[in-house]
Amino acid sequence: MTRSVVSLMDKWLLQKAHRLIGNAPFQIVPGWGECSQTIGSSGKPSFVVADRKTLAGLLLNPELAFGDAYVAGKIKVDGDLLALLDSSLDWIRKTEAHSILSRLVSFWLARVQANTRDGSHRNISLHYDLPVDFYKLWLDSRMVYTCAYFPAPAATLEEAQLAKMDHVCRKLQLRSGETVVEAGCGWGALALHMAKHYGAHVKAFNISTEQIAFARRRSQEEGLDGQVEFIEDDYRNIHGRFDAFVSVGMLEHVGAENYEELGRVVHRTVGDSGRGLLHFIGRNQAHAFSPWMRMRIFPGAYAPALREALKVLEPWGFSVLDVENLRQHYARTLEHWLARFERAADQVSRMFGPEFVRAWRLYLTGSAASFRTGTLQLFQLVFAGRKCQRIPWTRAYLYAEPPAAKGRAKWVHAGS
Amino acid sequence: MTRSVVSLMDKWLLQKAHRLIGNAPFQIVPGWGECSQTIGSSGKPSFVVADRKTLAGLLLNPELAFGDAYVAGKIKVDGDLLALLDSSLDWIRKTEAHSILSRLVSFWLARVQANTRDGSHRNISLHYDLPVDFYKLWLDSRMVYTCAYFPAPAATLEEAQLAKMDHVCRKLQLRSGETVVEAGCGWGALALHMAKHYGAHVKAFNISTEQIAFARRRSQEEGLDGQVEFIEDDYRNIHGRFDAFVSVGMLEHVGAENYEELGRVVHRTVGDSGRGLLHFIGRNQAHAFSPWMRMRIFPGAYAPALREALKVLEPWGFSVLDVENLRQHYARTLEHWLARFERAADQVSRMFGPEFVRAWRLYLTGSAASFRTGTLQLFQLVFAGRKCQRIPWTRAYLYAEPPAAKGRAKWVHAGS
Repeated sequence: MTRSVVSLMDKWLLQKAHRLIGNAPFQIVPGWGECSQTIGSSGKPSFVVADRKTLAGLLLNPELAFGDAYVAGKIKVDGDLLALLDSSLDWIRKTEAHSILSRLVSFWLARVQANTRDGSHRNISLHYDLPVDFYKLWLDSRMVYTCAYFPAPAATLEEAQLAKMDHVCRKLQLRSGETVVEAGCGWGALALHMAKHYGAHVKAFNISTEQIAFARRRSQEEGLDGQVEFIEDDYRNIHGRFDAFVSVGMLEHVGAENYEELGRVVHRTVGDSGRGLLHFIGRNQAHAFSPWMRMRIFPGAYAPALREALKVLEPWGFSVLDVENLRQHYARTLEHWLARFERAADQVSRMFGPEFVRAWRLYLTGSAASFRTGTLQLFQLVFAGRKCQRIPWTRAYLYAEPPAAKGRAKWVHAGS
Repeated sequence: MTRSVVSLMDKWLLQKAHRLIGNAPFQIVPGWGECSQTIGSSGKPSFVVADRKTLAGLLLNPELAFGDAYVAGKIKVDGDLLALLDSSLDWIRKTEAHSILSRLVSFWLARVQANTRDGSHRNISLHYDLPVDFYKLWLDSRMVYTCAYFPAPAATLEEAQLAKMDHVCRKLQLRSGETVVEAGCGWGALALHMAKHYGAHVKAFNISTEQIAFARRRSQEEGLDGQVEFIEDDYRNIHGRFDAFVSVGMLEHVGAENYEELGRVVHRTVGDSGRGLLHFIGRNQAHAFSPWMRMRIFPGAYAPALREALKVLEPWGFSVLDVENLRQHYARTLEHWLARFERAADQVSRMFGPEFVRAWRLYLTGSAASFRTGTLQLFQLVFAGRKCQRIPWTRAYLYAEPPAAKGRAKWVHAGS
């Protein structure tokens, strides 16, 4: 192309960018030689776009293009990525809603990533079957990959994951000898905790081969083999009868179209007299995850509005006993993960390359920003069968001293 | 009719009754001379039916006929009415679902009792405009006609209503000088409590003329005129901007068809930065109140499933922060009211006659049974605008010592 054509294209592109992005809560700095004109007003968080193609992509399909360009190193953020995302998420979401391309991508993703039994297996494997050595670099020592519970804001991540597991067990009023089924057990931390500290007998399901293998090794090492059984299978294949059903960070992978089926599984396992807890990422309003998150990080994932999630429980007449929104705790959890991840970035880069590092940095940072700004919520929901007799009188017992700590760290609520 | 025709009719009626009621969790004793055959198996709670017509009514439209016959004195319960209803509610509800007549009545009621502005006024007036002297006979001294909160099961009703109001104010994190709008304020107890003990400025709406008049007198007597304004108007006419929205025992009278409009009112009063609390009778599954309750006690009332109630909040992007199910507390509250009501039954009878006493006895007893058995739930739901900054870190503060009691009774949670 001749220089004048390029210059005309630049002019057109920049005009369009000014119109679309002029009022955005960020500033774009074109990074190619000929162009020195900044897009957007100064004083806002800014990033450098490497070339015309990347800028054009941002205009067509902002969210997906931003993610992919950031991962490819075509976008460089001046300063704090979290601050940029904190201030930009609302704008990106609104702009995305008007992007026809984004809607087409979303429609297509819903089809190719559908959570059929095979589909769920593929979706889960892509994320959770990454080597455990990678996750060990930035999770807590117990390997809990869900929102922690910080009794006080300054608690450590170790304390907060321990407190979260206790919070879950106490909300369930677990007693020694009771049976629990866990749907989606990660690397087994909660199942082992329920067995070890509450005397529960647990069957824990997961379709991630890597996670189940790791959980089984831990169970053997800790001598909890007789009390905990880790089963590599889909939640749809759960059978048998249990006192309680628990699922932490798994509803996000079920898909709204399968809530009724999940409800059927819950009801056939705990019946009208049992109880359970669902801990899941949700939203204020029904809305899909962004295309980038679904294409690059969590295929098939969906975070429901609370109203949608209740479709698991209402058809079976379960009573909702308690809902707690812990979104501030997930923001804090993600800040801890992100700090650890950054400290291990060189190691991660040696394992998977720099693009992987940038993709996961963007995912963790974007998630932190989403919980900080309220784009995402974290709901912990306790329910009981309509004939359940184990309903606490008040919730005061949750905030009294934690249960006797048998040779393990204790934690207390701030100000209590 | 000749004696043999009567006897044939009896035979037919009793056969039908045996078929329909044979397995019911109660026993019917026909009370007319010729007939001595008991319907249903012995050992179950029983009642005497005065005549053929009443028995026939029970077979056609069990719930409505039972209520009306009980009120008319055509049904006499041997022993404990609460025990009878405790064990019968499930059966009545299932049987009612199969009654075509009951469904027709329900369909008709939904039309004639619709909660239009005029309709709501009629509906509310019928129940809440009864003389305050009647309600004074059996409510607590502060005249709180909604579910109390018993910090310990043995708390008195006075303590429990006080604790409920504190629980609501603390869930809202009310601070001195903040503005609150209350939709449906009863006789004003909560509005006055928020002003007196939390320093709030309250505008409280109600369409019951009697209740508003009483609330205004109290406000003057307590010298809270400058802080609390009682407004006789429909929630749909609430305007202005407030820090918090609160509604206790009012959603039941809004009607599911108006949830979106209520949400609009909430959003225009607290916006994206405010917060609020909805306290309402709900259900595990969407289901109308029984025809008898709607015809004789609460015209136009509807207790939603939690999923339905969320239609108030979701369209406006409110975050659900906390849901607490207090159905056991409503059962206890109703037991207190019922005991007081029974002690005052003679006085009530002198005011309104014995049929009124029986109608309200049945309503209070049936409600107690509904909360005891889980047919009804009581949800307390805290929400916040998507930009609200006043979100507590944990709920531990709700269970720490209650706020400094300025010359008033203190209460503490059981075991804390």
